[in-house]
Amino acid sequence: MTLDDLTTPCLVLDLGLLRKNLAMMEAAVARHPGVVLRPHLKTAKSIEVAALAAPGHGPITVSTLAEAEAFWGAGYRDQIYAVGITPQKLDRLAALPGVKAITDDLATAQAIAAHPGAIQALVEVDVGEHRGGLRPDDEGLLAIAAALGPKLAGVITHAGHSYAGRTNAEMADIAETERAGITRAAERLRAAGHSVGIVSMGSSPTALYARSLEGVTEVRAGVYMFGDLFQAQIGTHAEADIAMTVLTSVIGRRAGTLLLDAGAMALSKDRSTAAPGIRDDGFGLVLDLDGQPSFGRVVVERAYQEHGVATGAPDLPVGARVRVQPNHTCMTAGAHERYFVVDGGREVIGTWARVNGW
Amino acid sequence: MTLDDLTTPCLVLDLGLLRKNLAMMEAAVARHPGVVLRPHLKTAKSIEVAALAAPGHGPITVSTLAEAEAFWGAGYRDQIYAVGITPQKLDRLAALPGVKAITDDLATAQAIAAHPGAIQALVEVDVGEHRGGLRPDDEGLLAIAAALGPKLAGVITHAGHSYAGRTNAEMADIAETERAGITRAAERLRAAGHSVGIVSMGSSPTALYARSLEGVTEVRAGVYMFGDLFQAQIGTHAEADIAMTVLTSVIGRRAGTLLLDAGAMALSKDRSTAAPGIRDDGFGLVLDLDGQPSFGRVVVERAYQEHGVATGAPDLPVGARVRVQPNHTCMTAGAHERYFVVDGGREVIGTWARVNGW
Repeated sequence: MTLDDLTTPCLVLDLGLLRKNLAMMEAAVARHPGVVLRPHLKTAKSIEVAALAAPGHGPITVSTLAEAEAFWGAGYRDQIYAVGITPQKLDRLAALPGVKAITDDLATAQAIAAHPGAIQALVEVDVGEHRGGLRPDDEGLLAIAAALGPKLAGVITHAGHSYAGRTNAEMADIAETERAGITRAAERLRAAGHSVGIVSMGSSPTALYARSLEGVTEVRAGVYMFGDLFQAQIGTHAEADIAMTVLTSVIGRRAGTLLLDAGAMALSKDRSTAAPGIRDDGFGLVLDLDGQPSFGRVVVERAYQEHGVATGAPDLPVGARVRVQPNHTCMTAGAHERYFVVDGGREVIGTWARVNGW
Repeated sequence: MTLDDLTTPCLVLDLGLLRKNLAMMEAAVARHPGVVLRPHLKTAKSIEVAALAAPGHGPITVSTLAEAEAFWGAGYRDQIYAVGITPQKLDRLAALPGVKAITDDLATAQAIAAHPGAIQALVEVDVGEHRGGLRPDDEGLLAIAAALGPKLAGVITHAGHSYAGRTNAEMADIAETERAGITRAAERLRAAGHSVGIVSMGSSPTALYARSLEGVTEVRAGVYMFGDLFQAQIGTHAEADIAMTVLTSVIGRRAGTLLLDAGAMALSKDRSTAAPGIRDDGFGLVLDLDGQPSFGRVVVERAYQEHGVATGAPDLPVGARVRVQPNHTCMTAGAHERYFVVDGGREVIGTWARVNGW
């Protein structure tokens, strides 16, 4: 089976590029002896990718309980479910020993403590993204840790605002703020007598560019596995190393315009590259069937549910196949149920399922 | 089972509102005697919704071959697959007699003619959206019709630019342009000796507001079944009649802000209400668990993969449940595998599967 035999649209994952991306992040984290990489599977959502990114059933991060269950079933017992837990979800979590929750809420911490299951939880800390978490100096941290008692597993933060960085130096500065904040939180809990085993931070930019990870036990990152145009624009991923593309067929043609069967459902409506200070790549960049940018910069400018409109395109016949690099790989993959795996060529060497839903 | 028992995030579909929306569109089309409503299942992607929207296995429209196969298997034999076909997809289509293709491409029309299957196809006409289709006066129309020969089933257009209309009068004007264009194309083909059985146009706005459908045999519309905030803003759907919402749990709280477990994956990154001339409802509008706007206008302002940030929100505890009206219902539903059906209350009276993928 080759790329010519597949039903379009579908996802193509290049194994060689995936391995290269994994090695790059492993090397970046290896600069910090003793710090563990805990890959985030929210992007890949694949057992086979996990086997490469976290060999030997190493520690992983997940974004849904559906992922937690699938990876737990595949042997991954050291997981962090990195989205704030609710009391109602504790029974489901308790069936997965080793999958750790996170919380920044006292009542939830009390519910965890009162739950009969062997649940462990990390306290979520906010180092500037202002999404979830308490500030490192917030009094509430101590109250939550005290409520968790022996179920406290550590502290965790995510400097999502690192994606606003436009230079390596800016991202390194944000990483240092992240490190300082999470270690400050850990120190405060330890000073209050708590055991803080895990001190977890991370995003792909801060994992790549942190100058120091002193006091941190692990970093989390996910999008580096595949990369995307946004990561390429902010300098955290080489455009040529984007491992996941959308295979699509030409379904219409006009002068300078191709209509593709990859629309908003297959590409997502994500417009990350519309962010300030970077080049706008629309809904994706059109490559040839071999994944090469032989057309120049042909961009999907409009996306209807099942139609993508690429402008500045060469005149290809209806039925011709091209590949689209994603704007934001996590979102683009969302509506797809599997990856068709290639290794540099057009031959499909595997079909890997995704764990979608919740 | 009630809404309190469901895993969040998930889709909630209100049967009473769905029925009301279906009746509204049926009444709008009934203003035009002899014109058939061919509901588009691209939004609902559900056998159970099709049974209500197209009772008696009436004519339907689909957006993927996966939908075509599922609905064909459920007994729907009169379908239009309303996305330009490619030669490679003809074998799959030929296994579904009665599912009609569309094309605006001569080589594809020739491939259809040469295919051994009993495939029927409509010629796609562009009445101003400039997505797919040939202009009504394009010479190519005649060539494609001639190539299709006895496999010509009719002509089809979609005035997607009707969504740029901001008043009923504007949408009625666009509907008239659509009607004039598609009937002009039909007349030209008939004058050349072709039999043109189907003259198909439609979008929810033009189906609702067309002054005349003279010469048109059918209208297609889909989003009216559920509605969304964008449709409400442009005046084609009452906000209180939006039938599909996302059930979500509070997973964090700050002053004036709620963190929800419905993020970009559960809500989509669609930002239709960011269009000019209407009110921006962010990534969705937060209702209470009963689907009522009792919080005032609380909007999901930011959407991360699994986190939504709602501002201006009341102080609800972690674990509390709310419902979010979607910005663009077709896209919001995309990552979900099923609907949990209610009928005005919190009791779940059914679970209806969606036909996702391609």
